[in-house]
Amino acid sequence: MPEIRHNVITREWVIIATERAKRPEEFAKSNVRRAPLQPHVSTCPFCVGNEDKTPPESYRTPVDGPWQVRAVPNKFAALDPTALLSRHVSGLKRMVSGVGIHEVIVETPHHDRVMALLSETEMVHVLETFRHRYNAITSDPRVAHATLFKNHGERAGTSLEHPHSQIVGTPIIPPMVRDRMENALRYYDETGECIYCSVLEEELRDQVRVVAQSRDFVAFIPYASLTPFHLWIFPLHHQASFSDVTGEQLTDLAWLLRLILRKVYFSLSDPDYNISVRTSPREAQGLRYYHWYVSIIPRVTRRAGFELGSGMFINTAMPESSAAFLRNVPAEPVEESDAETRGGTVLHH
Amino acid sequence: MPEIRHNVITREWVIIATERAKRPEEFAKSNVRRAPLQPHVSTCPFCVGNEDKTPPESYRTPVDGPWQVRAVPNKFAALDPTALLSRHVSGLKRMVSGVGIHEVIVETPHHDRVMALLSETEMVHVLETFRHRYNAITSDPRVAHATLFKNHGERAGTSLEHPHSQIVGTPIIPPMVRDRMENALRYYDETGECIYCSVLEEELRDQVRVVAQSRDFVAFIPYASLTPFHLWIFPLHHQASFSDVTGEQLTDLAWLLRLILRKVYFSLSDPDYNISVRTSPREAQGLRYYHWYVSIIPRVTRRAGFELGSGMFINTAMPESSAAFLRNVPAEPVEESDAETRGGTVLHH
Repeated sequence: MPEIRHNVITREWVIIATERAKRPEEFAKSNVRRAPLQPHVSTCPFCVGNEDKTPPESYRTPVDGPWQVRAVPNKFAALDPTALLSRHVSGLKRMVSGVGIHEVIVETPHHDRVMALLSETEMVHVLETFRHRYNAITSDPRVAHATLFKNHGERAGTSLEHPHSQIVGTPIIPPMVRDRMENALRYYDETGECIYCSVLEEELRDQVRVVAQSRDFVAFIPYASLTPFHLWIFPLHHQASFSDVTGEQLTDLAWLLRLILRKVYFSLSDPDYNISVRTSPREAQGLRYYHWYVSIIPRVTRRAGFELGSGMFINTAMPESSAAFLRNVPAEPVEESDAETRGGTVLHH
Repeated sequence: MPEIRHNVITREWVIIATERAKRPEEFAKSNVRRAPLQPHVSTCPFCVGNEDKTPPESYRTPVDGPWQVRAVPNKFAALDPTALLSRHVSGLKRMVSGVGIHEVIVETPHHDRVMALLSETEMVHVLETFRHRYNAITSDPRVAHATLFKNHGERAGTSLEHPHSQIVGTPIIPPMVRDRMENALRYYDETGECIYCSVLEEELRDQVRVVAQSRDFVAFIPYASLTPFHLWIFPLHHQASFSDVTGEQLTDLAWLLRLILRKVYFSLSDPDYNISVRTSPREAQGLRYYHWYVSIIPRVTRRAGFELGSGMFINTAMPESSAAFLRNVPAEPVEESDAETRGGTVLHH
């Protein structure tokens, strides 16, 4: 029988439609293979040698010598970084001026080095850049909240194939964040505990949805996961904001995130996915009841009218089965010879 | 400069990114033309003559003679209509048994007669079936809320191309609906008015976002529309639930909905879209502060990491420009000869 599961953190309800369920391997098979990427594309604004095609960089690492990661203002920014913050009310029409900071984080000089194929050190550099730009952008007094995300592949909404992430600092706190804070606060008032910490404790006790664990982080599939292979990575110890993360923790997260992305990449044939770093708004650092985390949503299914019309989701896989699958698959290519994978560029055939 | 607009009904914030804006005609051009549909497909379970490929029908119209519209249980239902309603709580895991009613409404016996190409009478039959099934399904005591929706085209999530809609009766009220009710109630307590009626009044005064009006309904693009050509059709006079709609009003709605769908079909080259009927939960009929409506979302853009990570949206078109465009385009083919369109089957080339 299907189950309708509730996520106590997000308040979302998800129909786990077991009658329609696929086996985890089937998602890999139904995945459309993408065309192989070239290591360098002369017209790509993010490829090495084309640095003059982007606005001047706001950050790079390493500082000296050839760069591995660059942060640059988005040339087609959704928001204007030079505008003044103002609010306009006319009848029931409410508007805030479109001020904000929208940057692109180029994760590698190589066009074909997708995130799952970065080395551990390269992944650390990417996360350090995330933290640096998050801190810089949220220190702008006009910015109330920053959203850090990555779109990998066309179904995930990317328009440029060169591996990159984005950060958008907005002058408003999204209602989704407000609602989750309110919900978490209510739980805290009732129990004296952070709802994220409580869920994490239960996940560690249950173990069935845990995919992997590092010293400071745990990757698991939520009890009411929205889609097959929807993953959350939580800091093990309470931390409200991504800006609180230490250098040691970043290194540890890089290891776990890389492990997870490699499992997904090799076992599900490089599906499109979105990553987002969900964190507290700028004005709410240090809260006892709110907890930052990383969310990974492989786009192996599509949101349709039911989801749009109800805000509910239909997941065609049991979260426990998806977790067992990812727990057991290796983070390495399985059926290819070593020669094909050497050098980190792998084989989309 | 971009604007960040607030929708006072849904509480959503939308970045209207004018720097990235396309002209309305460009969306039509960027739309991938679909392959022409056949009028009859022998393997299609919804085509006339294949009635034995679906479960027995729960409704049909006309009752005698050849059917035009059929409602049948979904063969791959997400929920189980025979289950008992039960709730399970274990720690922080909350679950409701997957009981519910999931039906398909086949809108036409003809495989290629997409909704925009139905006659006025045929459209009335479809809406009558919607109302009949909505009333029947919400009268099941296990059903708390019903979501009525349509997925048109692959990007909108459809898996079967034969024109059809779906209705899902769930044993829970989606939090999205609860949140909107709460928000509407707060407005009612403060003002003594229905927030939907107030917004509608302002839209009629402003006129700039109105696309078309009939005797009992108005079609407009919301001030903070989520995507280009996102449309709302509101009953002009207060009505909380779709089940309150009269036969005369249904006929009037059929005329307006058909007009809008034809404008979209011909001017934007038959884009993929979702329709949903948003209405009050079963237990909340007759409320003074809640208002049912129809939402149409053409899928001309894609939700990506920013939307998933923040719950905010980026719309690359000015709602006022989209409305002016749709207001002015004809609801008929423009550049094709009459011969090509005769018989209602039109021309996907």
